[in-house]
Amino acid sequence: MSDFAPSVSRLIDELKRLPGIGQKTAQRLAFFLLRSDRDQALGLADAIREAKDKIRECSVCNNITDTDPCQFCTSATRSRKTICVVEEPPNILAVEKTRQFSGLYHILGGALSPLQGIGPEQLKIKSLIERLKGGTVEEIIIATNPTAEGEATAVYLSKLIKPLGVRVTRIAMGIPVGSDLEYADEVTMMKAMEGRRDL
Amino acid sequence: MSDFAPSVSRLIDELKRLPGIGQKTAQRLAFFLLRSDRDQALGLADAIREAKDKIRECSVCNNITDTDPCQFCTSATRSRKTICVVEEPPNILAVEKTRQFSGLYHILGGALSPLQGIGPEQLKIKSLIERLKGGTVEEIIIATNPTAEGEATAVYLSKLIKPLGVRVTRIAMGIPVGSDLEYADEVTMMKAMEGRRDL
Repeated sequence: MSDFAPSVSRLIDELKRLPGIGQKTAQRLAFFLLRSDRDQALGLADAIREAKDKIRECSVCNNITDTDPCQFCTSATRSRKTICVVEEPPNILAVEKTRQFSGLYHILGGALSPLQGIGPEQLKIKSLIERLKGGTVEEIIIATNPTAEGEATAVYLSKLIKPLGVRVTRIAMGIPVGSDLEYADEVTMMKAMEGRRDL
Repeated sequence: MSDFAPSVSRLIDELKRLPGIGQKTAQRLAFFLLRSDRDQALGLADAIREAKDKIRECSVCNNITDTDPCQFCTSATRSRKTICVVEEPPNILAVEKTRQFSGLYHILGGALSPLQGIGPEQLKIKSLIERLKGGTVEEIIIATNPTAEGEATAVYLSKLIKPLGVRVTRIAMGIPVGSDLEYADEVTMMKAMEGRRDL
């Protein structure tokens, strides 16, 4: 005999599939949903369904969106001169939070990783090159992750795009603001030294 | 302009309502759901809906259940002589995990807490007394939480039930197995001394 009613077990199993959610957390969430009022619990169920039904990829920048093209690509207030290239849609948020960037985005859908069989064809690179053809874009900011894959992707893109006469830049790597040099790993420290600026 | 498409924002907001889920985790879960295949994401939505539709309270023990009476109350293999009294349905799991208890359960729906306006009428105490009337029940094990409220509830129940000629016991409080005396708080240590047994 299972300790839970079948529909409770099923809910716990479904919750356990989520990243970072183990048995205990899944149980806690399931009992929370069972205790909460019907509208609230079904609100979550409906939100999942609605998101899966409505969300598609923007045909311009590959961001996830309700409308095609997405809110960034159709915005009248954003500059068309700069495109920030990121690996995945959530990365946009990190850039947006700075409130310093008002250009457009391009989502690659990952980074080059020969070991995982991800080559240039698996990424949305062709459509990025297409976007440069109008001559409006003056700068590509490459904001892929500071990992081996992200770096390789940045180098690959820069070799591809520079010959087209577009400026290619890479976000700075270095010591995070508010941290302590004591805890910096040697690679980050090396990048911080390399990227030093005149005061 | 929001950083996310409206249906993504809604999904994040709904996930944030869950206990222990903040903005960052909600975003991570939302993007996971958006990336995962349709069946898997909708599996969670359907499980929530199914649980909310099917789950009711057992009319005997107040456990959450698909069927009324619940799997414990209808089980042919469980002894009807002992009832373990707990505060909430998830507490049953802690008892079941021991594999030592094969009696029935009774869920109070909380513990006495005058400060929060929870008196005996707000708990499922009347139905517990009803269950004792047949004369089958020989022992009530009170497994409310080892808190002030749980203790008060245990004392209240014991005063109510003992006169009916039913044995009333309370789960032991003491040092958890595998821990270190060094880290035991004084109240737990006091309970451990009080509850000492002959070797």
